[in-house]
Amino acid sequence: MLIIDCHGHYTTAPTAQQKFRDAQIAKTQDPTLPTPEQAHISDDEIRESIEKNQLKLQRERGADITIFSPRASAMGHHIGDEAVSLAWTRSSNDLIKRVVDLFPQNFVGVCQLPQSPGVPIKGSVNELERCVKELGFIGCNLNPDPSGGHWRSPPLTDKHWYPFYEKMVELDVPAMIHVSASCNPNFHATGAHYINADTTAFMQLIEGDLFKDFPTLRFIIPHGGGAVPYHWGRYRGLADMLKRPPLAQHVMKNVFFDTCVYHQPGIDLLVAVIDIDNILFGSEMVGAVRGIDPETGHYFDDTKRYIDALEIRGEDKRRIYELNARRVFPRLDAVLRARGL
Amino acid sequence: MLIIDCHGHYTTAPTAQQKFRDAQIAKTQDPTLPTPEQAHISDDEIRESIEKNQLKLQRERGADITIFSPRASAMGHHIGDEAVSLAWTRSSNDLIKRVVDLFPQNFVGVCQLPQSPGVPIKGSVNELERCVKELGFIGCNLNPDPSGGHWRSPPLTDKHWYPFYEKMVELDVPAMIHVSASCNPNFHATGAHYINADTTAFMQLIEGDLFKDFPTLRFIIPHGGGAVPYHWGRYRGLADMLKRPPLAQHVMKNVFFDTCVYHQPGIDLLVAVIDIDNILFGSEMVGAVRGIDPETGHYFDDTKRYIDALEIRGEDKRRIYELNARRVFPRLDAVLRARGL
Repeated sequence: MLIIDCHGHYTTAPTAQQKFRDAQIAKTQDPTLPTPEQAHISDDEIRESIEKNQLKLQRERGADITIFSPRASAMGHHIGDEAVSLAWTRSSNDLIKRVVDLFPQNFVGVCQLPQSPGVPIKGSVNELERCVKELGFIGCNLNPDPSGGHWRSPPLTDKHWYPFYEKMVELDVPAMIHVSASCNPNFHATGAHYINADTTAFMQLIEGDLFKDFPTLRFIIPHGGGAVPYHWGRYRGLADMLKRPPLAQHVMKNVFFDTCVYHQPGIDLLVAVIDIDNILFGSEMVGAVRGIDPETGHYFDDTKRYIDALEIRGEDKRRIYELNARRVFPRLDAVLRARGL
Repeated sequence: MLIIDCHGHYTTAPTAQQKFRDAQIAKTQDPTLPTPEQAHISDDEIRESIEKNQLKLQRERGADITIFSPRASAMGHHIGDEAVSLAWTRSSNDLIKRVVDLFPQNFVGVCQLPQSPGVPIKGSVNELERCVKELGFIGCNLNPDPSGGHWRSPPLTDKHWYPFYEKMVELDVPAMIHVSASCNPNFHATGAHYINADTTAFMQLIEGDLFKDFPTLRFIIPHGGGAVPYHWGRYRGLADMLKRPPLAQHVMKNVFFDTCVYHQPGIDLLVAVIDIDNILFGSEMVGAVRGIDPETGHYFDDTKRYIDALEIRGEDKRRIYELNARRVFPRLDAVLRARGL
């Protein structure tokens, strides 16, 4: 059985990358500044940043491969205009490609997108195509709120997003629905904005009819589906009140939750109420919560321990760890098959 | 043992009340319209609206008393200005008072507030005082987002809110943190905005130090605490990363969750991870989810069934059903004691 972690971000990129970003942001505030040069980062710097962090933890925890994307909180789609977003996005994705090339057994790439508030989503189509066709990436992170906590885009079921979904379907890649930092002081990024976005996206999918138009479109809703599994009765009841079909047919053929829930009772609930086929192993390490749980003595985000502790059949664990990810990410499956896995 | 439902709204008010509101809203759009008159509603109309709904369900389900407030989704603080909000709020609270007077054994009042976007919270102090001192109410519903889904107020820990907290402390009444309708198309009211607000409020309280300034201030976070119990490991871990004290000391001496979680696994998790002393029985009936769960044959919002099914000590059930509510709402305790209960 392979252990595939569907949710990892490059949160440990060399500091030169952030310096490039800082210079880019400074120029959005003072246009007289020079256009910043891309960071010069050596292979050794990348190796060190990965070996001491994600790779070390993969080995310690027993994971085989991480579906890896740029740091979500740094996507910052609300900063600058679409050109700024594009330059930062290409740079971030190219860095992921270098990680994958240096550690091809351990990482596979997922891209961020050059979204920007108020512009059509078609600007993101080209970058998705580049990342999938040229860089070999297998999916993308789609931000339902490029305004960063002000929620000024239309819901995910709106025709606004359709050109992007058409490209996703054509390329047969899924999207993880993932917001970035919050510039609304009401929302702590990882404590409120992330979880709220997950919950919000799911409810939008209940209200709409998106998967009638795109029957093969696939979304991963991270962080264990936000509040949804805990309130599964509420969502089943709301679907009924809104005269929608049962969730199993209406939404759950196309929507998957990861296991980024950082305690055993949460994982127990997730697996109790959500069909095993809709659950993908994920940890988001090294990510939002990096400490050790004093109640267990283990890292909060070592979610493999919680799955291992479940009293479910070995075959069901394999679906969570491997088979569901290979089904949701067909391009990952192709990569693994080419390796005889 | 008394069964106290801490979360009920007057969602079944006679239609004349909504007609008054409609006329009021029409006047915000066309100031040449006459100022609408308060609705003329007879005692018999109120009796009928309650007897066929909340009172019937109280009896069928075996609850004794409901902590009752105006319909949350109709508070509509984002509609019109502060004067409009005040007129609607007084009318809504006065109607709750009439329900309580007609059914004093079954209902006790909690008020909505004349909040309005962009104005100081001190405008709500007078109405709280009126409702507690003149109408005998025991608490209030405080909306952390009077803009209705745009989140333009400061976080609950900001000094903006302090004059209101001072009055709450003086009167010794708690607030339920409860948003109203959403005018942001991203957020379905009961499926996203409510749950997000619960989660957001809790995270604001982790980030801040509000209870250092107000050690006796008490908040109820409804809908089972939003996403918080499901992600309890994340919140414990974030408190640690943010160098906050452990949640038990930092937040949970002042914050309480209700049991408006509409399936057994959700209630099981709530009681497994949250201290019994922080859980108040609530159903929000007749409210967000009114249907029958095809998996159980019972109403989704008949949350008493889920509590009854818990394998916990009878004394712990009494804390959830009665004792915690009496502690959090001292003015309810005084009412009950005066009745020899």
